[in-house]
Amino acid sequence: MTQGSYPVTAQTTPTRLRERASYDRAAVHAVLDEAVLCHVGFVVDGAPVVLPQLHARIDDQLYLHGSTGARALRAARQDGLAVCVTVTLIDGLVLARSAFHHSINYRSVVIHGVAREVTDEATKQTALAGLVDAVVPGRSAAVRGPSVKELRATTVLRLDLRNVSLKSRSGPPGDDDADLELPYWAGVIPISTATGQAQPAPDLAAGIPVPAHVSGWARP
Amino acid sequence: MTQGSYPVTAQTTPTRLRERASYDRAAVHAVLDEAVLCHVGFVVDGAPVVLPQLHARIDDQLYLHGSTGARALRAARQDGLAVCVTVTLIDGLVLARSAFHHSINYRSVVIHGVAREVTDEATKQTALAGLVDAVVPGRSAAVRGPSVKELRATTVLRLDLRNVSLKSRSGPPGDDDADLELPYWAGVIPISTATGQAQPAPDLAAGIPVPAHVSGWARP
Repeated sequence: MTQGSYPVTAQTTPTRLRERASYDRAAVHAVLDEAVLCHVGFVVDGAPVVLPQLHARIDDQLYLHGSTGARALRAARQDGLAVCVTVTLIDGLVLARSAFHHSINYRSVVIHGVAREVTDEATKQTALAGLVDAVVPGRSAAVRGPSVKELRATTVLRLDLRNVSLKSRSGPPGDDDADLELPYWAGVIPISTATGQAQPAPDLAAGIPVPAHVSGWARP
Repeated sequence: MTQGSYPVTAQTTPTRLRERASYDRAAVHAVLDEAVLCHVGFVVDGAPVVLPQLHARIDDQLYLHGSTGARALRAARQDGLAVCVTVTLIDGLVLARSAFHHSINYRSVVIHGVAREVTDEATKQTALAGLVDAVVPGRSAAVRGPSVKELRATTVLRLDLRNVSLKSRSGPPGDDDADLELPYWAGVIPISTATGQAQPAPDLAAGIPVPAHVSGWARP
Protein backbone atom coordinates (compact mmCIF):
# COMPACT_ATOMS: atom_id res chain seq x y z
CA MET A 1 0.00 0.00 0.00
CA THR A 2 1.77 3.13 -1.11
CA GLN A 3 -1.18 5.45 -1.65
CA GLY A 4 -2.37 8.06 0.77
CA SER A 5 -0.60 10.16 3.35
CA TYR A 6 0.85 9.80 6.80
CA PRO A 7 -0.87 11.82 9.53
CA VAL A 8 0.41 15.28 10.40
CA THR A 9 1.49 15.19 14.03
CA ALA A 10 3.06 17.65 16.44
CA GLN A 11 6.44 15.97 15.96
CA THR A 12 6.23 16.02 12.18
CA THR A 13 5.12 19.62 11.77
CA PRO A 14 8.27 21.62 11.02
CA THR A 15 8.76 24.88 12.88
CA ARG A 16 10.16 26.45 9.71
CA LEU A 17 9.68 26.20 5.94
CA ARG A 18 6.47 24.20 6.21
CA GLU A 19 6.01 24.41 2.46
CA ARG A 20 8.92 22.00 2.11
CA ALA A 21 7.16 19.28 4.13
CA SER A 22 5.20 16.36 2.71
CA TYR A 23 3.41 13.38 4.20
CA ASP A 24 2.80 11.56 0.95
CA ARG A 25 3.27 7.86 1.51
CA ALA A 26 4.69 7.06 -1.93
CA ALA A 27 7.17 9.94 -1.75
CA VAL A 28 8.32 8.89 1.72
CA HIS A 29 8.75 5.29 0.59
CA ALA A 30 10.74 6.35 -2.49
CA VAL A 31 13.30 8.16 -0.35
CA LEU A 32 13.61 5.30 2.14
CA ASP A 33 14.03 2.80 -0.69
CA GLU A 34 16.60 4.84 -2.61
CA ALA A 35 18.90 5.55 0.32
CA VAL A 36 21.62 3.02 1.17
CA LEU A 37 21.67 4.00 4.82
CA CYS A 38 19.94 5.97 7.52
CA HIS A 39 21.11 7.80 10.63
CA VAL A 40 19.57 6.51 13.85
CA GLY A 41 19.39 8.86 16.83
CA PHE A 42 18.71 7.72 20.38
CA VAL A 43 19.41 8.96 23.88
CA VAL A 44 22.01 7.46 26.21
CA ASP A 45 22.24 8.88 29.73
CA GLY A 46 20.47 12.00 28.55
CA ALA A 47 22.85 12.64 25.67
CA PRO A 48 22.13 12.18 21.95
CA VAL A 49 23.85 9.46 19.93
CA VAL A 50 23.60 9.27 16.13
CA LEU A 51 24.87 6.22 14.23
CA PRO A 52 24.67 5.22 10.57
CA GLN A 53 22.75 2.01 9.95
CA LEU A 54 21.40 -0.01 7.07
CA HIS A 55 17.63 -0.13 6.87
CA ALA A 56 14.90 -1.91 4.95
CA ARG A 57 11.35 -0.73 4.42
CA ILE A 58 8.66 -3.36 4.04
CA ASP A 59 5.17 -1.89 3.69
CA ASP A 60 4.76 0.59 6.55
CA GLN A 61 7.57 -0.77 8.69
CA LEU A 62 11.22 0.13 8.79
CA TYR A 63 13.61 -2.61 9.89
CA LEU A 64 17.05 -2.07 11.44
CA HIS A 65 19.48 -4.69 12.65
CA GLY A 66 22.66 -5.05 14.57
CA SER A 67 24.72 -7.18 16.85
CA THR A 68 22.80 -8.60 19.76
CA GLY A 69 25.58 -7.22 21.97
CA ALA A 70 25.27 -3.59 20.86
CA ARG A 71 24.18 -1.22 23.59
CA ALA A 72 21.23 0.31 21.76
CA LEU A 73 19.89 -3.06 20.75
CA ARG A 74 20.10 -4.36 24.28
CA ALA A 75 18.03 -1.37 25.41
CA ALA A 76 15.54 -1.90 22.59
CA ARG A 77 14.98 -5.51 23.61
CA GLN A 78 13.67 -4.45 26.99
CA ASP A 79 11.24 -1.54 26.66
CA GLY A 80 11.78 -0.53 23.08
CA LEU A 81 14.11 2.29 22.12
CA ALA A 82 12.88 5.81 21.37
CA VAL A 83 14.54 6.73 18.10
CA CYS A 84 14.60 9.34 15.42
CA VAL A 85 15.60 7.81 12.10
CA THR A 86 16.63 10.25 9.39
CA VAL A 87 17.36 9.40 5.75
CA THR A 88 18.80 12.09 3.49
CA LEU A 89 19.48 12.11 -0.24
CA ILE A 90 21.45 14.94 -1.84
CA ASP A 91 20.22 15.92 -5.31
CA GLY A 92 22.18 19.08 -5.97
CA LEU A 93 24.21 22.02 -4.74
CA VAL A 94 22.33 25.29 -5.06
CA LEU A 95 24.55 28.28 -5.84
CA ALA A 96 22.92 31.67 -5.46
CA ARG A 97 24.27 35.16 -6.16
CA SER A 98 24.20 35.78 -2.40
CA ALA A 99 26.00 33.68 0.19
CA PHE A 100 22.78 33.70 2.22
CA HIS A 101 20.68 31.87 -0.38
CA HIS A 102 23.11 29.03 -0.97
CA SER A 103 21.38 25.75 -0.31
CA ILE A 104 21.12 22.08 -1.12
CA ASN A 105 18.55 20.27 -3.19
CA TYR A 106 17.69 17.30 -1.04
CA ARG A 107 15.04 14.86 0.11
CA SER A 108 15.04 13.94 3.79
CA VAL A 109 12.68 11.64 5.68
CA VAL A 110 12.46 11.89 9.47
CA ILE A 111 10.76 9.13 11.45
CA HIS A 112 10.01 9.37 15.16
CA GLY A 113 8.98 6.33 17.11
CA VAL A 114 9.86 3.46 19.38
CA ALA A 115 11.92 0.69 17.82
CA ARG A 116 11.04 -2.74 19.17
CA GLU A 117 12.68 -6.10 18.79
CA VAL A 118 11.23 -8.49 16.24
CA THR A 119 10.82 -11.76 18.10
CA ASP A 120 8.72 -13.67 15.57
CA GLU A 121 11.18 -15.88 13.69
CA ALA A 122 9.44 -15.72 10.31
CA THR A 123 9.19 -11.92 10.44
CA LYS A 124 12.82 -11.73 11.51
CA GLN A 125 13.93 -13.81 8.53
CA THR A 126 11.83 -11.72 6.16
CA ALA A 127 13.31 -8.54 7.60
CA LEU A 128 16.88 -9.83 7.31
CA ALA A 129 16.31 -10.82 3.68
CA GLY A 130 14.82 -7.37 3.17
CA LEU A 131 17.93 -5.76 4.65
CA VAL A 132 20.11 -7.59 2.12
CA ASP A 133 17.75 -6.77 -0.75
CA ALA A 134 17.52 -3.12 0.30
CA VAL A 135 21.23 -2.77 -0.46
CA VAL A 136 21.26 -4.96 -3.58
CA PRO A 137 17.81 -5.87 -4.95
CA GLY A 138 17.57 -9.58 -5.69
CA ARG A 139 20.63 -10.42 -3.64
CA SER A 140 18.99 -12.41 -0.83
CA ALA A 141 18.08 -15.20 -3.26
CA ALA A 142 21.73 -15.66 -4.25
CA VAL A 143 23.49 -16.08 -0.92
CA ARG A 144 23.72 -18.52 1.94
CA GLY A 145 20.92 -17.62 4.32
CA PRO A 146 21.51 -17.04 8.02
CA SER A 147 22.33 -19.97 10.29
CA VAL A 148 20.70 -20.46 13.68
CA LYS A 149 23.83 -19.09 15.33
CA GLU A 150 23.88 -16.03 13.06
CA LEU A 151 20.19 -15.41 13.73
CA ARG A 152 20.87 -15.51 17.46
CA ALA A 153 23.75 -13.06 17.07
CA THR A 154 21.54 -10.54 15.26
CA THR A 155 18.82 -8.39 16.73
CA VAL A 156 16.23 -6.98 14.34
CA LEU A 157 14.22 -3.90 15.28
CA ARG A 158 10.94 -2.76 13.80
CA LEU A 159 9.81 0.85 13.65
CA ASP A 160 6.32 1.73 12.47
CA LEU A 161 6.08 4.42 9.82
CA ARG A 162 3.47 6.66 11.36
CA ASN A 163 5.15 9.70 12.84
CA VAL A 164 6.97 10.42 9.58
CA SER A 165 7.51 13.31 7.23
CA LEU A 166 9.50 14.21 4.15
CA LYS A 167 11.21 17.54 3.68
CA SER A 168 12.70 18.48 0.35
CA ARG A 169 14.04 21.28 -1.77
CA SER A 170 14.38 21.26 -5.52
CA GLY A 171 14.84 23.74 -8.32
CA PRO A 172 17.02 26.78 -8.95
CA PRO A 173 18.36 29.22 -6.34
CA GLY A 174 15.92 31.69 -4.80
CA ASP A 175 17.86 34.93 -4.90
CA ASP A 176 16.37 38.24 -3.83
CA ASP A 177 15.10 40.31 -6.76
CA ALA A 178 17.65 42.99 -5.96
CA ASP A 179 20.49 40.49 -6.55
CA LEU A 180 19.39 39.11 -9.91
CA GLU A 181 21.59 41.41 -11.99
CA LEU A 182 24.74 40.82 -9.94
CA PRO A 183 27.61 39.52 -12.09
CA TYR A 184 27.79 36.18 -10.27
CA TRP A 185 26.98 32.82 -11.81
CA ALA A 186 24.00 31.10 -10.18
CA GLY A 187 22.51 27.69 -10.68
CA VAL A 188 22.60 24.08 -9.56
CA ILE A 189 25.30 21.42 -9.63
CA PRO A 190 23.40 18.09 -9.80
CA ILE A 191 24.66 15.37 -7.48
CA SER A 192 23.99 11.68 -7.78
CA THR A 193 25.34 8.31 -6.71
CA ALA A 194 27.77 6.63 -9.09
CA THR A 195 28.72 2.99 -9.26
CA GLY A 196 32.14 1.68 -10.18
CA GLN A 197 32.91 -1.65 -11.77
CA ALA A 198 32.25 -4.55 -9.42
CA GLN A 199 35.44 -5.86 -7.77
CA PRO A 200 35.38 -9.64 -7.26
CA ALA A 201 36.66 -10.88 -3.90
CA PRO A 202 40.33 -11.96 -4.19
CA ASP A 203 39.35 -15.43 -2.97
CA LEU A 204 36.34 -15.83 -5.28
CA ALA A 205 36.08 -19.38 -6.60
CA ALA A 206 36.88 -19.70 -10.30
CA GLY A 207 34.15 -19.61 -12.92
CA ILE A 208 31.53 -17.56 -11.09
CA PRO A 209 30.27 -14.81 -13.39
CA VAL A 210 29.13 -11.39 -12.18
CA PRO A 211 25.38 -11.83 -11.64
CA ALA A 212 22.85 -9.43 -13.15
CA HIS A 213 21.88 -8.09 -9.72
CA VAL A 214 25.48 -6.88 -9.38
CA SER A 215 26.26 -5.66 -12.91
CA GLY A 216 22.88 -4.00 -13.18
CA TRP A 217 22.85 -2.44 -9.73
CA ALA A 218 21.64 1.14 -9.59
CA ARG A 219 19.73 3.18 -7.07
CA PRO A 220 15.98 3.16 -7.83
CA MET B 1 47.21 21.51 12.43
CA THR B 2 46.19 18.16 11.07
CA GLN B 3 48.81 15.95 12.64
CA GLY B 4 48.32 13.86 15.73
CA SER B 5 45.32 12.15 17.20
CA TYR B 6 42.21 13.04 19.14
CA PRO B 7 42.02 11.64 22.67
CA VAL B 8 40.29 8.33 23.28
CA THR B 9 37.36 9.00 25.61
CA ALA B 10 34.60 6.91 27.12
CA GLN B 11 32.14 8.29 24.56
CA THR B 12 34.42 7.61 21.60
CA THR B 13 35.35 4.05 22.53
CA PRO B 14 33.07 1.78 20.51
CA THR B 15 31.45 -1.09 22.35
CA ARG B 16 31.97 -3.29 19.30
CA LEU B 17 34.46 -3.69 16.43
CA ARG B 18 37.08 -1.50 18.07
CA GLU B 19 39.53 -2.35 15.32
CA ARG B 20 37.44 -0.20 13.00
CA ALA B 21 37.92 2.93 15.13
CA SER B 22 40.50 5.64 14.55
CA TYR B 23 41.32 8.93 16.25
CA ASP B 24 43.75 10.18 13.62
CA ARG B 25 43.22 13.90 13.17
CA ALA B 26 44.00 14.00 9.43
CA ALA B 27 41.70 11.06 8.70
CA VAL B 28 38.87 12.64 10.71
CA HIS B 29 39.32 15.96 8.92
CA ALA B 30 39.34 14.29 5.50
CA VAL B 31 35.92 12.74 6.13
CA LEU B 32 34.44 15.96 7.49
CA ASP B 33 35.79 17.91 4.51
CA GLU B 34 34.62 15.43 1.88
CA ALA B 35 31.04 15.11 3.11
CA VAL B 36 28.46 17.60 1.85
CA LEU B 37 26.33 17.28 4.96
CA CYS B 38 26.16 15.91 8.47
CA HIS B 39 23.37 14.59 10.67
CA VAL B 40 22.94 16.51 13.92
CA GLY B 41 21.30 14.74 16.84
CA PHE B 42 19.96 16.53 19.91
CA VAL B 43 17.38 15.87 22.59
CA VAL B 44 13.99 17.62 22.77
CA ASP B 45 11.77 16.83 25.75
CA GLY B 46 13.75 13.66 26.34
CA ALA B 47 13.33 12.39 22.78
CA PRO B 48 16.01 12.23 20.08
CA VAL B 49 15.84 14.45 17.00
CA VAL B 50 18.17 13.99 14.01
CA LEU B 51 18.32 16.57 11.23
CA PRO B 52 20.58 16.93 8.17
CA GLN B 53 22.69 20.08 8.18
CA LEU B 54 25.53 21.63 6.24
CA HIS B 55 28.76 21.92 8.15
CA ALA B 56 32.20 23.47 7.79
CA ARG B 57 35.37 22.42 9.54
CA ILE B 58 37.97 25.08 10.25
CA ASP B 59 40.99 23.76 12.16
CA ASP B 60 39.60 21.86 15.15
CA GLN B 61 36.15 23.42 15.09
CA LEU B 62 33.00 22.35 13.31
CA TYR B 63 30.55 25.09 12.39
CA LEU B 64 26.82 24.66 11.84
CA HIS B 65 24.28 27.31 11.00
CA GLY B 66 20.59 27.83 10.73
CA SER B 67 17.73 30.23 11.07
CA THR B 68 17.79 32.24 14.28
CA GLY B 69 14.18 31.15 14.78
CA ALA B 70 14.85 27.40 14.66
CA ARG B 71 14.12 25.59 17.92
CA ALA B 72 17.49 23.91 18.35
CA LEU B 73 19.36 27.11 17.66
CA ARG B 74 17.30 29.02 20.20
CA ALA B 75 18.21 26.39 22.79
CA ALA B 76 21.88 26.54 21.81
CA ARG B 77 22.00 30.31 22.30
CA GLN B 78 21.14 29.92 25.94
CA ASP B 79 23.17 27.13 27.52
CA GLY B 80 24.65 25.47 24.51
CA LEU B 81 23.12 22.40 22.92
CA ALA B 82 24.35 18.88 23.62
CA VAL B 83 24.74 17.31 20.19
CA CYS B 84 26.03 14.26 18.43
CA VAL B 85 27.13 15.14 14.90
CA THR B 86 27.64 12.21 12.55
CA VAL B 87 29.10 12.36 9.05
CA THR B 88 29.01 9.25 6.88
CA LEU B 89 30.52 8.54 3.48
CA ILE B 90 29.62 5.37 1.58
CA ASP B 91 32.51 3.86 -0.37
CA GLY B 92 31.08 0.53 -1.46
CA LEU B 93 28.56 -2.25 -1.06
CA VAL B 94 30.11 -5.43 0.30
CA LEU B 95 28.54 -8.62 -1.05
CA ALA B 96 29.48 -11.78 0.79
CA ARG B 97 28.59 -15.42 0.08
CA SER B 98 26.51 -15.37 3.27
CA ALA B 99 23.71 -12.93 4.00
CA PHE B 100 25.25 -12.43 7.45
CA HIS B 101 28.53 -10.96 6.19
CA HIS B 102 26.99 -8.41 3.85
CA SER B 103 28.23 -5.00 4.78
CA ILE B 104 29.10 -1.51 3.61
CA ASN B 105 32.48 0.05 3.04
CA TYR B 106 32.16 3.40 4.75
CA ARG B 107 33.87 6.13 6.72
CA SER B 108 31.88 7.69 9.55
CA VAL B 109 32.92 10.40 11.99
CA VAL B 110 30.98 10.82 15.23
CA ILE B 111 31.44 13.98 17.30
CA HIS B 112 30.00 14.44 20.79
CA GLY B 113 29.93 17.84 22.40
CA VAL B 114 28.09 21.00 23.26
CA ALA B 115 27.40 23.35 20.35
CA ARG B 116 27.55 27.01 21.35
CA GLU B 117 26.58 30.16 19.53
CA VAL B 118 29.33 32.13 17.84
CA THR B 119 28.82 35.71 19.00
CA ASP B 120 32.07 37.25 17.77
CA GLU B 121 31.17 38.94 14.47
CA ALA B 122 34.49 38.28 12.72
CA THR B 123 34.43 34.59 13.64
CA LYS B 124 30.80 34.39 12.52
CA GLN B 125 31.64 35.85 9.11
CA THR B 126 34.60 33.49 8.72
CA ALA B 127 32.40 30.54 9.64
CA LEU B 128 29.66 31.56 7.19
CA ALA B 129 32.21 31.93 4.38
CA GLY B 130 33.55 28.53 5.41
CA LEU B 131 30.06 27.04 5.18
CA VAL B 132 29.76 28.27 1.57
CA ASP B 133 33.27 27.09 0.70
CA ALA B 134 32.66 23.71 2.34
CA VAL B 135 29.98 23.04 -0.29
CA VAL B 136 31.82 24.64 -3.22
CA PRO B 137 35.49 25.48 -2.58
CA GLY B 138 36.30 29.01 -3.72
CA ARG B 139 32.66 30.03 -3.88
CA SER B 140 32.58 32.56 -1.04
CA ALA B 141 34.84 34.93 -3.00
CA ALA B 142 32.38 35.01 -5.92
CA VAL B 143 29.08 35.91 -4.25
CA ARG B 144 27.46 38.82 -2.49
CA GLY B 145 28.41 38.48 1.17
CA PRO B 146 25.82 38.53 3.95
CA SER B 147 24.02 41.76 4.83
CA VAL B 148 23.54 42.93 8.40
CA LYS B 149 19.94 41.71 8.24
CA GLU B 150 21.02 38.30 6.92
CA LEU B 151 23.66 38.00 9.62
CA ARG B 152 21.04 38.71 12.25
CA ALA B 153 18.72 36.09 10.75
CA THR B 154 21.43 33.43 10.96
CA THR B 155 22.75 31.69 14.05
CA VAL B 156 26.15 30.04 13.79
CA LEU B 157 27.12 27.28 16.20
CA ARG B 158 30.61 26.08 17.03
CA LEU B 159 31.45 22.57 18.16
CA ASP B 160 34.96 21.69 19.30
CA LEU B 161 36.48 18.59 17.75
CA ARG B 162 37.67 16.81 20.84
CA ASN B 163 35.29 13.98 21.64
CA VAL B 164 35.55 12.60 18.11
CA SER B 165 36.24 9.31 16.40
CA LEU B 166 36.25 7.78 12.96
CA LYS B 167 34.91 4.34 12.22
CA SER B 168 35.47 2.76 8.85
CA ARG B 169 35.38 -0.44 6.88
CA SER B 170 37.19 -1.10 3.63
CA GLY B 171 38.21 -4.05 1.52
CA PRO B 172 36.60 -7.28 0.35
CA PRO B 173 33.92 -9.30 2.16
CA GLY B 174 34.94 -11.30 5.21
CA ASP B 175 33.23 -14.62 4.61
CA ASP B 176 33.68 -17.59 6.89
CA ASP B 177 36.25 -20.08 5.58
CA ALA B 178 33.53 -22.72 5.29
CA ASP B 179 31.65 -20.52 2.79
CA LEU B 180 34.51 -19.69 0.43
CA GLU B 181 33.70 -22.43 -2.07
CA LEU B 182 29.98 -21.68 -2.27
CA PRO B 183 28.86 -20.92 -5.83
CA TYR B 184 27.90 -17.33 -5.04
CA TRP B 185 29.60 -14.25 -6.44
CA ALA B 186 31.25 -12.13 -3.75
CA GLY B 187 32.95 -8.78 -3.96
CA VAL B 188 32.45 -5.04 -3.71
CA ILE B 189 30.39 -2.56 -5.74
CA PRO B 190 32.24 0.78 -5.41
CA ILE B 191 30.05 3.79 -4.69
CA SER B 192 30.98 7.40 -5.21
CA THR B 193 29.44 10.83 -5.68
CA ALA B 194 28.85 11.93 -9.27
CA THR B 195 28.34 15.43 -10.56
CA GLY B 196 26.06 16.34 -13.47
CA GLN B 197 26.50 19.30 -15.78
CA ALA B 198 25.91 22.61 -14.01
CA GLN B 199 22.42 24.01 -14.65
CA PRO B 200 22.36 27.83 -14.87
CA ALA B 201 19.50 29.57 -13.06
CA PRO B 202 16.68 30.38 -15.53
CA ASP B 203 17.01 34.06 -14.62
CA LEU B 204 20.80 34.20 -14.89
CA ALA B 205 21.96 37.47 -16.45
CA ALA B 206 23.38 37.10 -19.97
CA GLY B 207 27.08 36.72 -20.57
CA ILE B 208 28.12 35.14 -17.26
CA PRO B 209 30.29 32.08 -17.95
CA VAL B 210 30.38 29.02 -15.72
CA PRO B 211 33.23 29.74 -13.29
CA ALA B 212 36.04 27.27 -12.69
CA HIS B 213 34.87 26.59 -9.12
CA VAL B 214 31.63 25.25 -10.62
CA SER B 215 32.88 23.43 -13.73
CA GLY B 216 35.75 21.92 -11.75
CA TRP B 217 33.77 20.99 -8.67
CA ALA B 218 34.52 17.58 -7.27
CA ARG B 219 34.57 16.11 -3.78
CA PRO B 220 38.10 16.18 -2.34
